[in-house]
Amino acid sequence: MLLNKIEDVRTEVEKYRKSGLKVGLVPTMGALHEGHLSLIKKAKETCDKVVVSVFVNPIQFGPSEDFDKYPRTLEADTELCNKEGVDIVFAPTPKEMYGEGNRLSNDTLTYVCPPFFYVNKLCGKTRTGHFDGVCTVVMKLFNIVQPDCAFFGQKDAQQVIIIKKMVNDLNIPIQIIQCPIVREESGLALSSRNKYLTEEGKKDALVLSEILNNIKLCYQKGITDVSALKETAYSFLTDKHELEYLELMDRDTLEEKTSADDNTIALIACRVQGVRLIDNVYLK
Amino acid sequence: MLLNKIEDVRTEVEKYRKSGLKVGLVPTMGALHEGHLSLIKKAKETCDKVVVSVFVNPIQFGPSEDFDKYPRTLEADTELCNKEGVDIVFAPTPKEMYGEGNRLSNDTLTYVCPPFFYVNKLCGKTRTGHFDGVCTVVMKLFNIVQPDCAFFGQKDAQQVIIIKKMVNDLNIPIQIIQCPIVREESGLALSSRNKYLTEEGKKDALVLSEILNNIKLCYQKGITDVSALKETAYSFLTDKHELEYLELMDRDTLEEKTSADDNTIALIACRVQGVRLIDNVYLK
Repeated sequence: MLLNKIEDVRTEVEKYRKSGLKVGLVPTMGALHEGHLSLIKKAKETCDKVVVSVFVNPIQFGPSEDFDKYPRTLEADTELCNKEGVDIVFAPTPKEMYGEGNRLSNDTLTYVCPPFFYVNKLCGKTRTGHFDGVCTVVMKLFNIVQPDCAFFGQKDAQQVIIIKKMVNDLNIPIQIIQCPIVREESGLALSSRNKYLTEEGKKDALVLSEILNNIKLCYQKGITDVSALKETAYSFLTDKHELEYLELMDRDTLEEKTSADDNTIALIACRVQGVRLIDNVYLK
Repeated sequence: MLLNKIEDVRTEVEKYRKSGLKVGLVPTMGALHEGHLSLIKKAKETCDKVVVSVFVNPIQFGPSEDFDKYPRTLEADTELCNKEGVDIVFAPTPKEMYGEGNRLSNDTLTYVCPPFFYVNKLCGKTRTGHFDGVCTVVMKLFNIVQPDCAFFGQKDAQQVIIIKKMVNDLNIPIQIIQCPIVREESGLALSSRNKYLTEEGKKDALVLSEILNNIKLCYQKGITDVSALKETAYSFLTDKHELEYLELMDRDTLEEKTSADDNTIALIACRVQGVRLIDNVYLK
């Protein structure tokens, strides 16, 4: 069932809740791929009813980012969701979510702001306000759908850590379920932004997973010094790659590591053909 | 029933919800007076079960404010609540609400931040971060109790406007019910901070309601020019009064008025004996 109105979603989900059914929410920006489908399948496994939201959220894009050209494929998305047995596809307009007029700045809109310590690093360093926008829309979706569980991919590692932190800090009564990264056979992590890449670009983009896998391998061979582990990346990079960051951090708290351990996550962001790609891997 | 643990409140309220009962929340900082009791009575009238939270919220006090000396009278508060038929008094410790250690800054804690337009005026001007702290704790209480309705007093006018804005912006599925100011026979608005005043101070404090009533009277006689209306205040003030602000604004949007109308609220903050007091009145 495709719904565009907040009130219609509330009414429908209210029926589920009254019947004692367990409701799962998969928040997406659409352009669904196998990565999203893995979240949906997990939701179908663990919940009685599944809601997938499809909303390209304006307040998590910076002014120079790709909000306007971000892929929008609602018809195909809805078809995929139907095939997976999704109960509700919730695809609101920006106006439905944020009202009329210029209500998107923090001068006029209430924001949920995750802590600086989690935000002032990795993707948050270059994407100012991005995670405020993410937490705000996720909070709105949580309040609209009131699910028992919500499903997020490890692909956006900083995002899921920040959302878990938000849920904990604000006592949100929802269980966050994190699902592993889905990759092409080549190793390339699935992303809606891969659509911007040519075939050659997709080959160049393999460097992200190659660097991460190599770091993981080196760690498993006994190298723990983070500088040394990072150093191993540079042999992979060519002039096709614009590295934004490569960091080794605690996978729960995002504290920087000087010495890697079994709780360490390696995270990378790199531009290929002008497209900003991210990836990450747990060292264990 | 007096509960200190978040989990215990959740368990208890879950029972109410499963029985289809309507739950009301009255968030307070304790030191309950007739003003709070009017909220509790209203909650008892409109809901099946009533939860009163008693929590002096550290994150809404500035470093030079009265957090440490704020009146704490839990035993008397609980007794009053029992007399009114309150079902749960929820009185958590700061540690229960915010965890161990120094987790209170926006470096380490997720905050709910109301829009600057609503915050950068009136009490928010001198109480930096105050409304971030208020919205954050109210959001936490909302998520812990998950009430159908929550009750706030018009006494803290800016607060209730900001909370309504938060509820609207973040799609919080809770109805906010605003209750009128309760006053002593003298006209003094009830406040937990009145306890700091001597008898003479309480007399000097009457100037707040006198100024507001006079403005209302002048408006009803046909004066709408805001400068002229404000001007009428000065004859009331003596060296016992340290006026912080006197403003005429839209009662829903907090837009400043140059010409008063039926939707205007007059708001005042003034120190008497070093105690910061606030009051407000609708012109109609």
